[in-house]
Amino acid sequence: MRDTFLVGVGMTAFGKFPDAGLGSLGREAVLAALADAGVGAGDIEVIACGSARSGILQARESGVGQLVGWEAGIEGVPVYNEKAFCASGAMAFNIANLAVASGAQDVALVVGVEKMSARNGKGRPLTSDGMALESEVGYTPPAYYAMAASRHMDVYGTTREQIAAIAVKNRTAAADNPRAQYRTPITMDDVLSSKPIASPLNLLDCCPTGDGAAAAILVSAEGAERLGIVPKIKISASSVGTGYYRQQDRDMTSFGLDKRTSQRAYDLAGLGPDDVDVAEVHDSFSIAEIIHYEDLGFCAPGAGGKLVESGETALGGRIPVNTGGGLLNRGHPLGATGVAQIVELADQLLGRAGSRQVHGAKTGLAHISGGFHEGDFATSGVTILTRYGR
Amino acid sequence: MRDTFLVGVGMTAFGKFPDAGLGSLGREAVLAALADAGVGAGDIEVIACGSARSGILQARESGVGQLVGWEAGIEGVPVYNEKAFCASGAMAFNIANLAVASGAQDVALVVGVEKMSARNGKGRPLTSDGMALESEVGYTPPAYYAMAASRHMDVYGTTREQIAAIAVKNRTAAADNPRAQYRTPITMDDVLSSKPIASPLNLLDCCPTGDGAAAAILVSAEGAERLGIVPKIKISASSVGTGYYRQQDRDMTSFGLDKRTSQRAYDLAGLGPDDVDVAEVHDSFSIAEIIHYEDLGFCAPGAGGKLVESGETALGGRIPVNTGGGLLNRGHPLGATGVAQIVELADQLLGRAGSRQVHGAKTGLAHISGGFHEGDFATSGVTILTRYGR
Repeated sequence: MRDTFLVGVGMTAFGKFPDAGLGSLGREAVLAALADAGVGAGDIEVIACGSARSGILQARESGVGQLVGWEAGIEGVPVYNEKAFCASGAMAFNIANLAVASGAQDVALVVGVEKMSARNGKGRPLTSDGMALESEVGYTPPAYYAMAASRHMDVYGTTREQIAAIAVKNRTAAADNPRAQYRTPITMDDVLSSKPIASPLNLLDCCPTGDGAAAAILVSAEGAERLGIVPKIKISASSVGTGYYRQQDRDMTSFGLDKRTSQRAYDLAGLGPDDVDVAEVHDSFSIAEIIHYEDLGFCAPGAGGKLVESGETALGGRIPVNTGGGLLNRGHPLGATGVAQIVELADQLLGRAGSRQVHGAKTGLAHISGGFHEGDFATSGVTILTRYGR
Repeated sequence: MRDTFLVGVGMTAFGKFPDAGLGSLGREAVLAALADAGVGAGDIEVIACGSARSGILQARESGVGQLVGWEAGIEGVPVYNEKAFCASGAMAFNIANLAVASGAQDVALVVGVEKMSARNGKGRPLTSDGMALESEVGYTPPAYYAMAASRHMDVYGTTREQIAAIAVKNRTAAADNPRAQYRTPITMDDVLSSKPIASPLNLLDCCPTGDGAAAAILVSAEGAERLGIVPKIKISASSVGTGYYRQQDRDMTSFGLDKRTSQRAYDLAGLGPDDVDVAEVHDSFSIAEIIHYEDLGFCAPGAGGKLVESGETALGGRIPVNTGGGLLNRGHPLGATGVAQIVELADQLLGRAGSRQVHGAKTGLAHISGGFHEGDFATSGVTILTRYGR
């Protein structure tokens, strides 16, 4: 595989934008990424787009990448479209990386976009495909993670306060992110007294729905040279996997798929969890971030609650996680999220994250999972970015 | 890019199968391809799946590849899902090829599957996304191709009989293909007297809807060695493109996208149209095959009608096209078609096509286009396969 580099990122604010469409949201993110990279629309040689629910939400089952490309003035290039629920953006990033790494193209655009607000209050829960039975009996994502939380508390003694600490930490981070959907600081009491959703999780333990888009530009060394760009971020690993979400023994306190996918990413990058300076971790629900700490190797199994309690994953700690607010507060427009994680890591590695900067960050990791199917099938994506050059 | 090889193919019969689902159709094709390659489900390292309309038809917007993998006993590998209408299978093939060519994986499964019969007689026409206005005013695929036919007749003097000759030729081929949906021989008179659909096209000029699946196994040289396989077919080119379907000057007698996509395929393969011994060409409507002859370089612009009339594209001619019956007669379950074309070429290159064998075929080309968006945006795929080794 050829080396690949991240040379530009852009995103919209995340929130509820009744006047915006997939095309206008995507266009805004893409134009920002092009400007950031200093390349023109005509330089893009391939598009990979993640948009999870454009079919059910906008009656557009296919062609979102084409639509966004059209709105951004990009025409005549191959367009891949990926739908893998929360992991759609990570899948699109992975395909763009494959296209450049293989030598098929030298300059790739990744865009993730979703407009979920149209769904508010209408129709059935927006759960994954192939989950008709599970949804019917109430086994929706909040219920799933609530059970995982209960089990984690029972097996490891994780406390309700440790779980809530994720929500407080990530809201604190979001307060410094002008593009985050929810920025007003909250306290532990706010989380613990918010509306119950699925015991033990309350409203502030759950990510919101929203609209938004994010984009990134990837190049090969040849592409960078041709465009006169000096790459500053290397894509050290893009790993995706699909499979049983939980371990085969149905242990809800650890997700085997994420362990395998992250291990492959570490192997590809020649790095380990101790090398990670800043991370974006899938926090669709507060408990998820704790479990993922463990599966990503940031701490020992069962120690995730203590890790957040220690402050080590907050800004200023050993390994700040979700410095942009996470899914919980930056927001989670499904297809956009995986790419928004890349935007945050790029800003961190380039030292331009402002008041939420992780000083001296050299290696960033983005992790996302989602896309349940048939009860226990999911997709996971882990990307490792490394500061490159002087 | 690393060399990639096609080492196994399989498909279901195409037709209307009320008792079959996406999972069972996909499983049948995948198990056939695995058996053909002589590899096990556990050897598959990545899946790419094309299924165009699983959202609108089966309320499964995502995860068809996961479902089919599960039914075939393949678990824990990355799964890509592609939706690009008629070109979905070609896009999936292209991604699998990227995955192997890049070095990300050594053994890839491509599967295309569609179950369209559920739609029969229900709902609005199953046209592409982003075509609400066009559909409303009757600008559906048959109307589009009818206009192209009229224009081709006017500009080049192509005759109605030449257009109908495509339908007759491809039905003749299908009669020899036990997996084809329509096999009863037809005459020129049958085509000309069949029910009018969109003048000048009649029912027998239009491909049917149906159900089916097709699968293929791709490997790197390393993968072949590890599995003890001696590759006999090299993937010399997999080219996909998206863009304006017609030329920018709105010439309906030639599709610029197909010209560009095929030219890139020829460049990648280091071959030209004269090197092609057998071809699968997108014949969603009879006129389409004539126009594509010209855009693929099989004859000069405007000479497509004469080419089919001459018999050169029938079995025994200079360049037999759609030896399996084409979309018109083998059938066109959208996501499956692009992979079924690969199945036919493999059988031809391996000399196992029986009574429809093109003797001595060394190079095969598969072409498909489709997936209109916003009126004039489409996806095109061209694959070139070459007999390899002794």
